[in-house]
Amino acid sequence: MKLLEDRICSEGVVRNGDILKVDSFLNHQMDVSLFREMAREWKRRFAGSEVTKILTIEASGIGLACIAAEEFGCRAVFAKKTAGSNMDAEVFSTKITSFTKGKVYDVVVSKRFLKPEDRVLILDDFLANGCALLGLMDLVKQSGATLVGCGIAIEKGFQDGGKRIREMGVQLESLAIIDSMEGGTLVFREE
Amino acid sequence: MKLLEDRICSEGVVRNGDILKVDSFLNHQMDVSLFREMAREWKRRFAGSEVTKILTIEASGIGLACIAAEEFGCRAVFAKKTAGSNMDAEVFSTKITSFTKGKVYDVVVSKRFLKPEDRVLILDDFLANGCALLGLMDLVKQSGATLVGCGIAIEKGFQDGGKRIREMGVQLESLAIIDSMEGGTLVFREE
Repeated sequence: MKLLEDRICSEGVVRNGDILKVDSFLNHQMDVSLFREMAREWKRRFAGSEVTKILTIEASGIGLACIAAEEFGCRAVFAKKTAGSNMDAEVFSTKITSFTKGKVYDVVVSKRFLKPEDRVLILDDFLANGCALLGLMDLVKQSGATLVGCGIAIEKGFQDGGKRIREMGVQLESLAIIDSMEGGTLVFREE
Repeated sequence: MKLLEDRICSEGVVRNGDILKVDSFLNHQMDVSLFREMAREWKRRFAGSEVTKILTIEASGIGLACIAAEEFGCRAVFAKKTAGSNMDAEVFSTKITSFTKGKVYDVVVSKRFLKPEDRVLILDDFLANGCALLGLMDLVKQSGATLVGCGIAIEKGFQDGGKRIREMGVQLESLAIIDSMEGGTLVFREE
């Protein structure tokens, strides 16, 4: 998606070889007019999929999920990284490793919000090794809901998460795929 | 706001006397069509305030902030609860105590996203003792930006956060104020 690639080029900053900072518009400050265009693009790519629920994980995915939920006319749910004290006891649970933060999280969704009749689109801001996405897919599987596919803002195509998930037969729609950022130069995959 | 009060009555669950679970529409599953109406109501209450930035805190405030940012035509920023490894070194920082989770968080916002010329509206899902809101107000003060006011979805009027913040002269617009939930019966403050 050219609009997103252009924004990554103009505002993204590459650090330490493999960290891409896009916090001016995606995951700290959020440019909601860009989010709206991204949501419309996912809606186009998943046209006819009859999505009934958008699933994401706190925190960076939540804004994208909410804007997209308006486009798809459904509710959004965010998986929580730890079970808070007033979290529902009846949850689907999985473990997700965050390499950025060097932690393993228990990630939960209340069983009330993922049902066998749901058709779920998973959205998130980044895809690298795929741990978060595979965890969210596991939650969907536990619920018996149908996974429609996954939408990602920025995929690091030089890590193997996208390849693994596509090889599982999942429709994965990343709006920008970066195949290389060596020396700070961003190379996007052709659509 | 009657629409929100009605939803709290129909879907909210009171637990252990002072916990109100509204996770089916507000802070786990998110009803974005309700969020849109709430955002329009804040826009009406802060009409003419020339808001340039919406500030919230992860995670539950993010969805509300994004939908509201579209109404106000500005960007949203969420304060982060811990400094991640690729967090900007140049941050405004404050400490917020979460009684729900029994923790003290360092909460940060990059200095790049709050500027002296900004006119900031703070939004959050809940207001009880006011710790989170006071922390966010401290971040705005550090930045030199102008605080336009605070918008809250649900205020627990039987705790003192709202009173303290109004006594500071801050325009605080809570869309539903619960003055009592003794015995599980919700009593809303008249508007």
